[in-house]
Amino acid sequence: MPTLLVKDATIVTQDAKRRVVRGDLRAEEGVITHVGPIAPQHADVVIEAKGDILLPGLVNAHTHSPMTLLRGLGDDLPLEDWLRTRIWPAEKNLTRSDIEAGTDLALLEMTRTGTTAFADMYFYADATAECTKKAGLRGLIAGTLVDFDTPEHKYGSLRDATRKFVQRWSGHPLISPAIAPHSTYTCSDETLDFARQLRDETGARIHTHCSETRFEVQDVLQKRGARPVGVLEKHDLLRDAVLAHCGWVTKEEIQTLSRHAAHAVHCPVSNLKLATGGTMPFMEMLDAKLNVALGTDGAASNNTLDLIETAKFAALVQKQHRWDARAANAQQVLDAATRGGARALHTGSGALEVGAPADLVLVSTRAPHMAPLHDPVSTLAYCANGADVRATIVAGRVLYLDGQHKTLDAERVIARANEAAERVASSAGLR
Amino acid sequence: MPTLLVKDATIVTQDAKRRVVRGDLRAEEGVITHVGPIAPQHADVVIEAKGDILLPGLVNAHTHSPMTLLRGLGDDLPLEDWLRTRIWPAEKNLTRSDIEAGTDLALLEMTRTGTTAFADMYFYADATAECTKKAGLRGLIAGTLVDFDTPEHKYGSLRDATRKFVQRWSGHPLISPAIAPHSTYTCSDETLDFARQLRDETGARIHTHCSETRFEVQDVLQKRGARPVGVLEKHDLLRDAVLAHCGWVTKEEIQTLSRHAAHAVHCPVSNLKLATGGTMPFMEMLDAKLNVALGTDGAASNNTLDLIETAKFAALVQKQHRWDARAANAQQVLDAATRGGARALHTGSGALEVGAPADLVLVSTRAPHMAPLHDPVSTLAYCANGADVRATIVAGRVLYLDGQHKTLDAERVIARANEAAERVASSAGLR
Repeated sequence: MPTLLVKDATIVTQDAKRRVVRGDLRAEEGVITHVGPIAPQHADVVIEAKGDILLPGLVNAHTHSPMTLLRGLGDDLPLEDWLRTRIWPAEKNLTRSDIEAGTDLALLEMTRTGTTAFADMYFYADATAECTKKAGLRGLIAGTLVDFDTPEHKYGSLRDATRKFVQRWSGHPLISPAIAPHSTYTCSDETLDFARQLRDETGARIHTHCSETRFEVQDVLQKRGARPVGVLEKHDLLRDAVLAHCGWVTKEEIQTLSRHAAHAVHCPVSNLKLATGGTMPFMEMLDAKLNVALGTDGAASNNTLDLIETAKFAALVQKQHRWDARAANAQQVLDAATRGGARALHTGSGALEVGAPADLVLVSTRAPHMAPLHDPVSTLAYCANGADVRATIVAGRVLYLDGQHKTLDAERVIARANEAAERVASSAGLR
Repeated sequence: MPTLLVKDATIVTQDAKRRVVRGDLRAEEGVITHVGPIAPQHADVVIEAKGDILLPGLVNAHTHSPMTLLRGLGDDLPLEDWLRTRIWPAEKNLTRSDIEAGTDLALLEMTRTGTTAFADMYFYADATAECTKKAGLRGLIAGTLVDFDTPEHKYGSLRDATRKFVQRWSGHPLISPAIAPHSTYTCSDETLDFARQLRDETGARIHTHCSETRFEVQDVLQKRGARPVGVLEKHDLLRDAVLAHCGWVTKEEIQTLSRHAAHAVHCPVSNLKLATGGTMPFMEMLDAKLNVALGTDGAASNNTLDLIETAKFAALVQKQHRWDARAANAQQVLDAATRGGARALHTGSGALEVGAPADLVLVSTRAPHMAPLHDPVSTLAYCANGADVRATIVAGRVLYLDGQHKTLDAERVIARANEAAERVASSAGLR
């Protein structure tokens, strides 16, 4: 594997001391071997950073990659209408080829905007895993369990298929298979128990939706006698689980989640866009030492997969919610986007330090909105967006650099996604 | 003046019928002469749009351009601390040269991100007007009136200076001088009366801050016996005035503002970042036929001048606030960013139609986050950001095209701003 040297960067290390240092970063065999002034100067691949900001790879801890096909297909609708009149009809006829087309577009966008690892949940997880392997990102990719037929499987064969998916991808260096009981409002006790058994049997992680909307919480409480966190705890599904949204959790539930070392994935843009109402108690979670990561959610409810944009929303929404400009500061949201995500996805420390995986993002400081550079962390959180990314690197391998994708054919990916999207919209009667 | 032809665009006309048409746009003498299929093919300047989105120029209806120098200098602080410990000390020693440096950086960023006209309020308005003239944007640029010395003028000479500024710039084709009594908490009755007299004498517009924070509203009520809207009405300052923020206005005040044909400028990013608490009643304003425009506010409280980003925040914040995903839909926020802004700044209809000023933005649809293009208006509001802008055109003159600035030397502007920012931060003891 080629050695990598990034020269003369402003390195936002995100290490335990949150040091910002000017210097070089070197990686060998996919692992960081040097961070700081004057690295050994030889390397197979050399990137001249010229003072641009180098930071750990961003982690998108909750998304539905193939939903890029449905981007912009049903905006400005209440959640229920959105699902019933747009998303479900469009999803009904999805083929494996559509999933590949949508996933590739998502991978292209994530690579372009600095995401090095992501947690995915959708149908045809095997197709998503294949695409991710080819693109070279890290993925915690979940086979979805629900109590009805999916476009891929009849309900009766879904569990077997999920078991096979998990077995097939176990031990892969980039892909971690996961199990996604969709939510406590779509999965029976039996399905939840199966998810736990499969987890215990295989060691695969759990990824699920939890307490996204007030309606969901009330609905689950009424039907199951406990709120979503309680239901998941009863089924022993909280341990080290990746829980998307957690917008409507109580302080006591935050303690429960923290005790089980669960991971709360904040998806502020999606929550706002679908008007889920609750603002995730980010600060209370940090106080309770609950790990918080960031996610974009699917492109149909965001409508981008730009995690830098999501970090800005996360900070600003929290300030507004608490009437306190100090809440969710730049460092805290950057931590969630890097360290928090890496902890949730088990992809290392999420810091640039010797021995950590060489998952890196180089952010250009050349655009007018990036000047002056009074504080690189503030600049990342409040000024930058995904378009400022110069390079995205996973395990020391350059996936994107200065406009060039190394593992994906951008034009082909976009053309194929456009075709698939057109067909999906037409077949659902949305054209 | 050279003729201009933009060929084969997806034209989001923003006309009365909000038509989206595929075709060409032609401009002569700075005015649109054709919109739709097959324009006369000869022109001095031809831009091949290849299906990219052409829309009316964005209007940033409230900013403080020179504050780009203070971008990132005091984040995550409560408004009062922010002003007292960062902004005021830094502003104290600003020179005309600093103002030019900061304004040029703002103009560079606005041109890069699709803004064709902006409303500015700061010290050294004459310097801002000079820079704007050179850069070729339209500016409603206000001389600021406050009841204390400014870095530019002693209080005693401020009024004369403002009168001179207004007289100097009256009648300019791009620059409209305005009068900015800063707010009802920083201006005495005398100062407000002077602003009105100067307006009546010269025809210059009024631009002021109004009801940004709850504290301000209570403070003004206590000290002056009326809330900010009431104070401005008493001094006859509401007529056709540009009012920044209006976050804490009552339904009755909305009626008052509408009756006076005032313009409310929503600055959602700044409001969130400074945690002003209130969410501007956007929907109630539309219901009352009050004109709503969008603004970024200064870069110190945003921290960008990207009006496309602001439009996304405007839509999403409103949905969250009302628990209604239908609120502030894509079309409504795009209207505020174009038509609403143009109406506030008196720069035409803000639509692409024959006879309107040729103020245009061409947005690339090539980036992964812009595909698929199910709905161009949704794509602009929820997917795009300023980096997607391919071209910015004012009065038929290309200011920016495909990475090239035509009126500003980008490298020089950024270098000069960095130097000035460093000096300003140092002299305020913030380094």
